[in-house]
Amino acid sequence: MKAHTGLRINTDRLMMSIEELGAIGAYRDAEANVMGVRRLALSAEDGAGRRLVMRWFEEAGLHVSVDAIGNVYADRAGRDASLAPVMSGSHVDSVPTGGRFDGVLGVLGALEVVRTLNDAGAMTRRPLTIAFFTDEEGCRFGTDMLGSAVATGRIPLEQAYALRDADRKSVRNELQAIGFLGDEAVNTRRPHAFVECHVEQGPLLIHEGIDLGVVSGVQGISWQRLTISGASAHAGATPMHLRKDAGLAAAMINTKIHDMCAHGDYGSDMRATMGVIRPEPCMINVIPGRVVATVDLRNPSDDAMHRAEHALDAYCRELERTMGVTIVSQQTARTPAVAFDESVQQIIEAAARTQGLSCRRILAGAGHDAQEWSAVCKTAMIFVPGLNDGISHNPRELSTPEQCANGINTLLAVVLALSDEVA
Amino acid sequence: MKAHTGLRINTDRLMMSIEELGAIGAYRDAEANVMGVRRLALSAEDGAGRRLVMRWFEEAGLHVSVDAIGNVYADRAGRDASLAPVMSGSHVDSVPTGGRFDGVLGVLGALEVVRTLNDAGAMTRRPLTIAFFTDEEGCRFGTDMLGSAVATGRIPLEQAYALRDADRKSVRNELQAIGFLGDEAVNTRRPHAFVECHVEQGPLLIHEGIDLGVVSGVQGISWQRLTISGASAHAGATPMHLRKDAGLAAAMINTKIHDMCAHGDYGSDMRATMGVIRPEPCMINVIPGRVVATVDLRNPSDDAMHRAEHALDAYCRELERTMGVTIVSQQTARTPAVAFDESVQQIIEAAARTQGLSCRRILAGAGHDAQEWSAVCKTAMIFVPGLNDGISHNPRELSTPEQCANGINTLLAVVLALSDEVA
Repeated sequence: MKAHTGLRINTDRLMMSIEELGAIGAYRDAEANVMGVRRLALSAEDGAGRRLVMRWFEEAGLHVSVDAIGNVYADRAGRDASLAPVMSGSHVDSVPTGGRFDGVLGVLGALEVVRTLNDAGAMTRRPLTIAFFTDEEGCRFGTDMLGSAVATGRIPLEQAYALRDADRKSVRNELQAIGFLGDEAVNTRRPHAFVECHVEQGPLLIHEGIDLGVVSGVQGISWQRLTISGASAHAGATPMHLRKDAGLAAAMINTKIHDMCAHGDYGSDMRATMGVIRPEPCMINVIPGRVVATVDLRNPSDDAMHRAEHALDAYCRELERTMGVTIVSQQTARTPAVAFDESVQQIIEAAARTQGLSCRRILAGAGHDAQEWSAVCKTAMIFVPGLNDGISHNPRELSTPEQCANGINTLLAVVLALSDEVA
Repeated sequence: MKAHTGLRINTDRLMMSIEELGAIGAYRDAEANVMGVRRLALSAEDGAGRRLVMRWFEEAGLHVSVDAIGNVYADRAGRDASLAPVMSGSHVDSVPTGGRFDGVLGVLGALEVVRTLNDAGAMTRRPLTIAFFTDEEGCRFGTDMLGSAVATGRIPLEQAYALRDADRKSVRNELQAIGFLGDEAVNTRRPHAFVECHVEQGPLLIHEGIDLGVVSGVQGISWQRLTISGASAHAGATPMHLRKDAGLAAAMINTKIHDMCAHGDYGSDMRATMGVIRPEPCMINVIPGRVVATVDLRNPSDDAMHRAEHALDAYCRELERTMGVTIVSQQTARTPAVAFDESVQQIIEAAARTQGLSCRRILAGAGHDAQEWSAVCKTAMIFVPGLNDGISHNPRELSTPEQCANGINTLLAVVLALSDEVA
């Protein structure tokens, strides 16, 4: 590693590549009044974006292969072909109204690492692999991290193939349609380590003025859809004590979950959100008789998550008794917490420190390909802050060249350190 | 009055008339699986309903006239033509998905009073007037109690004429279209007293097992539309302390207004409802950045209402400071409380007592024609309980023949008592 510690990426080249890929699927977002990106998984735009990045991989001298779920791998030889490679990458698909950085920074950042090594004529001990994975966003076929989950064995290939979008088009057909039904077998790659650079998609780093996040893990997620049934009645004619106000029950659940975050025994990283609230009939002078509401809980501790779910359920039962409503809960998602590898986190911290960058441990609030790879190799992530409070899944998503360079220079140092490891 | 104290209405005739009028504009309500009524003000159905009732008025020997806003009056001579008449009535228009009793009970009940007097060959000292008023519901042209408000001088005739429905059709044109642009001048009738029988449209009487409500007044109404602006952000990536959750602010306002009813210093009859809650973007994993919500406050005391509005506003300012949201309030309706005449209420109570019926004072939660007439003469109302928790504005609205007969026999006794008053 020592031989290459002075290497720095070419920031202009990185930003130009991000810009160029961002033009594929670009649209003018009327609300945000900026250009956004719409490159839904396995759409024609996704296909065009994939082909551009593959061309860049090939121009960088990499050996490109596509697996059966459309994941793309670009391999660079190391000095010792017997050692497992260090892998870095992310995704190039986007949400329907996305920005230019989500996923792309991790893919083109890994490409920039290779380009920098190429410029320096540097060869690493271990082979390197850059990759991008199919349908990380899950917006089109309903399952996020689809490609990396198939690549690491969590989701069977045939199950993934059978998923359909809103137009009943299957993953398999759409892979074929854009020419990415590859022939490499899935669930065969076992890297030495996986490291992914990604925009934070949150406000913490920019708010605290910290250069980089060292991602300690991914929060567990619990999604519930609550159907609260009370009695719709006249707002003027119904005395307070004879009401069964489903909207009030939803409000009390919303304040309760916030109170659990602030004062509960569920850890300081618990997060809770009621994003959906749909009262019926939703008229000014009618007491809501029915409300559909959602609760999104996040926690890095599976134990704390379990206790929080239990407390929420107990509170709903209490509201049923005291308010005369019924509350039916349907679990719509449940993923366990993922803890990233401590040694990789320490390598990231050392690399940041060496470059004079401030960093802090941070939890990933969203799902990432890295959490799938953490099942098969040691893994961690680098978070880059973003302007506009770190907004993401939005055309206003924006990280500066300096912020991106901090992340990718650190990725370069981390890849070099990991690729130098013998065991 | 004594001469007629033994009179009882013909309940079968009353119920058959209600049934017959309910067939005009009837529709099968798929959700409730019963027949409902759709007789929107000044629609063809309203015209047909009006003509049926007018025919019944004429068959009862009454002198029918129509005023310039389409209100219909049916006069019956008294022994002393120099005395002002006792008036009773209500409305025959309905909400889009209404029942058979709302308004109709008061009109056909007053007709049944006259029919009963006719059968007995009884003549009252004062003249009697039965009336029904245009567009009490306000569903089509946006202003409720329109006809009675014009008849009593609160709303100028030309202003009422200019109101338009969703298809831009004006009140004046639609009156003409159904043949009810009458020639009697408005704001000229000054009855001795006005008494209206109406279904309760609430659960209080049926819940307490009480036969009749003696309406002490109509609550003041304050409607506000709140636009709460926070910041939309990722539910996973945004720490709790960096959020501006507009949905949480709405929830806290909802619990606050209920707390004000339960523990505040605004009187035990204060009612508060948040009927509309519309979060944006309304997605499970996005913190609501904006919520439109409504607050409906009711209070029989204008002073208490004023203090409650002030307290709510102060709470919104507090949330702005503590939560970083902005809350813009728009007042969309504001009507003062109406107190009905104490002496008429006592006459109703005495009439109920004489017939062995239980009664209690009760506040009207909804608007009624009687509140307009209370501006020009002594006025009160009789409430009849309904099954299904007193549900109204719904095809399931239902009062039994016994419940209806209790109300209209009491109305008969009250009309006789009032019509015997010399001053």
